[in-house]
Amino acid sequence: MAMKSLDTLLLDELKDLYDAEHQITEALPMLMDAASDRRLKSALQEHLRVTGRQIKRLDQIFQQLGKEPSRKLCKGMQGIIKEGQSMMKEGEGSPTLDAALIASAQKVEHYEIASYGSVRTWADQLGLRDISDLLQQTLDEEGQTDHHLTSIAKEINPKAQQQA
Amino acid sequence: MAMKSLDTLLLDELKDLYDAEHQITEALPMLMDAASDRRLKSALQEHLRVTGRQIKRLDQIFQQLGKEPSRKLCKGMQGIIKEGQSMMKEGEGSPTLDAALIASAQKVEHYEIASYGSVRTWADQLGLRDISDLLQQTLDEEGQTDHHLTSIAKEINPKAQQQA
Repeated sequence: MAMKSLDTLLLDELKDLYDAEHQITEALPMLMDAASDRRLKSALQEHLRVTGRQIKRLDQIFQQLGKEPSRKLCKGMQGIIKEGQSMMKEGEGSPTLDAALIASAQKVEHYEIASYGSVRTWADQLGLRDISDLLQQTLDEEGQTDHHLTSIAKEINPKAQQQA
Repeated sequence: MAMKSLDTLLLDELKDLYDAEHQITEALPMLMDAASDRRLKSALQEHLRVTGRQIKRLDQIFQQLGKEPSRKLCKGMQGIIKEGQSMMKEGEGSPTLDAALIASAQKVEHYEIASYGSVRTWADQLGLRDISDLLQQTLDEEGQTDHHLTSIAKEINPKAQQQA
């Protein structure tokens, strides 16, 4: 078994995140199609746009590390997306579907917050200041998206309850 | 396709969380065995103890809703735990294993923060004040565990780097 140094661990987790971001890019259009609420549709569209920017930021980080960008299957995100797809199927046509979509999207956000938080801490420890700054920008965006989804949830849920 | 009301959505997500907490209970002893750092071992042990309390709180919530506690396979947690097991296998014997274990544990925490956050919001909307309070207690504990793990990570990582 090869000994794993902190820079190898960082690189592995960046590949996991690179795969997670691509999985999100593939899954978001389905969520956008399923959403009814106009603000939710537009928040998910914005999320897709921001995800594209976050992938470019990861490209830039791989380049700074002198590595080719590559994906390592992110089983965590795979599970979260599978669960979201089941929720969508079970809630099809229900007034609570938007609430379920927000819950799924927030699980995606929180996976990313945990993972970007770890790699940012590791980049700091390795003295990789520029990379840490790039990761912090993404981390800030993930936090903003999560708060935005919470505020939409608070407006949408009473409607879901009334219609149920 | 049955129309899903907000109380059905709440119940479904509580079953998902009930399964997630049991999956965590089964996975934590493995992480505790793999950890080297004394504080990390003790934080994971505390996490296991708190998880037991959170399961009892879910039992209480099911009872208040007049339902039998039951598990619905949480694919999100299943994916996160599978990923953690791969990380443990790949990092076996490495000085960075503790850092990898913390990253995995924080993904578990953040899944729970997202999910308990959604059900707490839905309980509020449904006017289920007692249930909302119980969920908030768990949410506060999850936040504390996450912060505790971050503070251990900051102390452990430099050591991992020196030894690598």
